[in-house]
Amino acid sequence: MTAGLKIVAGAPAAAPRDNSLPRAVAVEFIATAFLLIAVIGSGIMAERLSGGNLAVALLANAIATGMGLLALILVCEPHSGAHMNPVVTLAAALTDGFRWRAALAYVAAQAAGAVAGVGLAHLMFDLPVIQFSRHARTGAGQWLGEIVATFGLLMVIWGCRHSRPPVTALAVASYIAGAYWFTSSTSFANPAVTLARSLTDTFSGIRPQDAPGFILAQLAGLLIALPLLRALQRAGIRVA
Amino acid sequence: MTAGLKIVAGAPAAAPRDNSLPRAVAVEFIATAFLLIAVIGSGIMAERLSGGNLAVALLANAIATGMGLLALILVCEPHSGAHMNPVVTLAAALTDGFRWRAALAYVAAQAAGAVAGVGLAHLMFDLPVIQFSRHARTGAGQWLGEIVATFGLLMVIWGCRHSRPPVTALAVASYIAGAYWFTSSTSFANPAVTLARSLTDTFSGIRPQDAPGFILAQLAGLLIALPLLRALQRAGIRVA
Amino acid sequence: MTAGLKIVAGAPAAAPRDNSLPRAVAVEFIATAFLLIAVIGSGIMAERLSGGNLAVALLANAIATGMGLLALILVCEPHSGAHMNPVVTLAAALTDGFRWRAALAYVAAQAAGAVAGVGLAHLMFDLPVIQFSRHARTGAGQWLGEIVATFGLLMVIWGCRHSRPPVTALAVASYIAGAYWFTSSTSFANPAVTLARSLTDTFSGIRPQDAPGFILAQLAGLLIALPLLRALQRAGIRVA
Amino acid sequence: MTAGLKIVAGAPAAAPRDNSLPRAVAVEFIATAFLLIAVIGSGIMAERLSGGNLAVALLANAIATGMGLLALILVCEPHSGAHMNPVVTLAAALTDGFRWRAALAYVAAQAAGAVAGVGLAHLMFDLPVIQFSRHARTGAGQWLGEIVATFGLLMVIWGCRHSRPPVTALAVASYIAGAYWFTSSTSFANPAVTLARSLTDTFSGIRPQDAPGFILAQLAGLLIALPLLRALQRAGIRVA
Repeated sequence: MTAGLKIVAGAPAAAPRDNSLPRAVAVEFIATAFLLIAVIGSGIMAERLSGGNLAVALLANAIATGMGLLALILVCEPHSGAHMNPVVTLAAALTDGFRWRAALAYVAAQAAGAVAGVGLAHLMFDLPVIQFSRHARTGAGQWLGEIVATFGLLMVIWGCRHSRPPVTALAVASYIAGAYWFTSSTSFANPAVTLARSLTDTFSGIRPQDAPGFILAQLAGLLIALPLLRALQRAGIRVA
Repeated sequence: MTAGLKIVAGAPAAAPRDNSLPRAVAVEFIATAFLLIAVIGSGIMAERLSGGNLAVALLANAIATGMGLLALILVCEPHSGAHMNPVVTLAAALTDGFRWRAALAYVAAQAAGAVAGVGLAHLMFDLPVIQFSRHARTGAGQWLGEIVATFGLLMVIWGCRHSRPPVTALAVASYIAGAYWFTSSTSFANPAVTLARSLTDTFSGIRPQDAPGFILAQLAGLLIALPLLRALQRAGIRVA
Repeated sequence: MTAGLKIVAGAPAAAPRDNSLPRAVAVEFIATAFLLIAVIGSGIMAERLSGGNLAVALLANAIATGMGLLALILVCEPHSGAHMNPVVTLAAALTDGFRWRAALAYVAAQAAGAVAGVGLAHLMFDLPVIQFSRHARTGAGQWLGEIVATFGLLMVIWGCRHSRPPVTALAVASYIAGAYWFTSSTSFANPAVTLARSLTDTFSGIRPQDAPGFILAQLAGLLIALPLLRALQRAGIRVA
Repeated sequence: MTAGLKIVAGAPAAAPRDNSLPRAVAVEFIATAFLLIAVIGSGIMAERLSGGNLAVALLANAIATGMGLLALILVCEPHSGAHMNPVVTLAAALTDGFRWRAALAYVAAQAAGAVAGVGLAHLMFDLPVIQFSRHARTGAGQWLGEIVATFGLLMVIWGCRHSRPPVTALAVASYIAGAYWFTSSTSFANPAVTLARSLTDTFSGIRPQDAPGFILAQLAGLLIALPLLRALQRAGIRVA
């Protein structure tokens, strides 16, 4: 099972200290749940307080997401690799020998954790546990945004193979907080997050019918990134 | 007394360089006072300048708190473990062999420091030394917010045992700044802070009658987190 | 070719692990494209959401640029030095023995990448691929702004020779995010960025006729900085 | 002269690699000039763009100052200790054996650099080189703010003696960016900065007649901090 858990986002050379898959899967569940709490909770708070100023709301949403993500990656990376994202797990399976059975378990845990996170966020803010979003997010521009966002995310993770885990965590969290602003789709870049965000009718939601388009664009971003990831993998020499 | 001081937030393996308890207790007093200056002072400034835009006010409050907290943890960690929080001290006593006598002294210093910090913040801003807050913060949603916030804070601290102290400091400060936004209660997550914030009738205050609910929720968050903390403790191998 | 690639922004002593120039040039192309996506994409999003509040828009633009830049430098530095800026490449050629042939290839890749980045940003936001900016940016004050901005940027990069690459990345990204605010020109400090920003009629654009003035000021900043860079080069001892 | 230059803010154990005093003094001049460009330039930009929203203006001012300060300390620390502040130099002379002759040269360079920075900032923004501020900043509350701000700054610097220079830089920059918000005086905490800010009639100015009160309060903060600094000095063991 060691090989199956070898790849960890940003620190592929560092095998988890505890090689049990169930443990790693549990960490992915908790981490993805907290990621969604960060994304959706801060979106609700931002929408409520900003009095209609969307720029201030997105600024708070982006900063809170980036801050939460930084803490989560720093905490979870040694235990599960801190994927929190099916696209990252898939890319690890395709380029790094991450075992498919483990990948399946990871993706299931990420999806379940993401939905659990939405529910918790809603309960905290006195909303129904599950809603359906009415926030339209569609069109070629936003799909291109998701392709760019996902390509960039994978480039950042694989490109940091030469760095220590805290550096990778900083790079990934900075990238996501920035990409909330510089991609037209506000950078979901994560199928589990996309699924979960279709279940909230708040600031960060996406209509269920728009989710497949986003997820397909994310997979396209992965496909386009694959050659680059393989090149970075060959080049990646981990330095002290 | 070495054993009694062994646990330090985020760097449990690093024994304080000076093993005297009085010294560590004095550091906790000063650090918690400064933490409250950061929380309450920035809240007053934000409220005065933001002209009623609560989102901008909370953004400034969260950023200033996170920045101040980062500096305080970096400075105080080697001297006292930089707990600044009775829940952290209690968790250390329950999972890490932090001595109960030391824990009692820590908690007293944290409470006294927090109240002193409120007084100083008020004097700086030309307000009465002590006030009673009229800011209602109550209800199941916010209590769940405090449970989530406290659970997450402890998870971050215990989960970073494998990291160097500056990395833990960054993770904790990022987490708190983010959680101001993504929990419905704005993440007090600290009984000493809750007590002290009941004594200010400004932006960051909480009505005295609402404080016990928050503190109970924080203790519930600790209880729920305990099994996870013990698991992280077993897994926690400190790497270079 | 090793000597030709020796200098890398912020970590001149660390030779790229792969010494092929084509590879490094490709990295410069991709990195500069992403830099422009960050600059222009976040500017478009900021302008659309901020409802005319220019301060909020510039704050988002500066934070997103700094965050994106941090991730890009962390990722690309081992592969190409993460110049992303003809002025940096030129300074490396003038002070560090970076070969002129490599410099030429770098500058061409930076210019092409920057323009490609503008096109991608426009497509993401449903705008024509190329526009001409109507945003006037001219006058002695702004030219002095560019001189100061470029001088400072080079001082930061050369002054961090004693630091590890992640520290340099943090210094450069912080400097640029800050300098968006503290120079009157909002700190372009980069001829490739200036060229590309003349091709967008959005928040971060500059009129084509104003671009030469900015670029000349950037080159003046480089000239004025040269003696300092040489002094820092002599003093620069890389420490562990 | 080695002894005379030994103390450097945040990294007292690391002697400058070049022991010449003139060189260190030149670095202090340039660094303090850039610090004032950051403080005053970002204040002018913030005031112009924020349309009267003082909270947004101070947020931009604080973030830009913190970002600039982080870059400056990272760059200048190995060359001069990155004091940029007469109170820091004075404290080094009083507790660390920093030679009085060197201290005098440092303070002169800091004052001259600060005034030069104001002039440059004004020229960039098309203002007269020197103005006199009409911004009233006075009263017991704000003086207490300066005492707290200066005490805290010195505590942070001396408390980080156990840390590596980049960690200290992060702590100091975070502290200052936070203290802009959590002290009633917006945390000048620096006599050279106070002097220079009396010479600008913009957002960050202070009336010349109010400057002595602020400077006296800063010296009081130093006096009150001295016993703590001496205790931290004794405790300060530099770890790897």
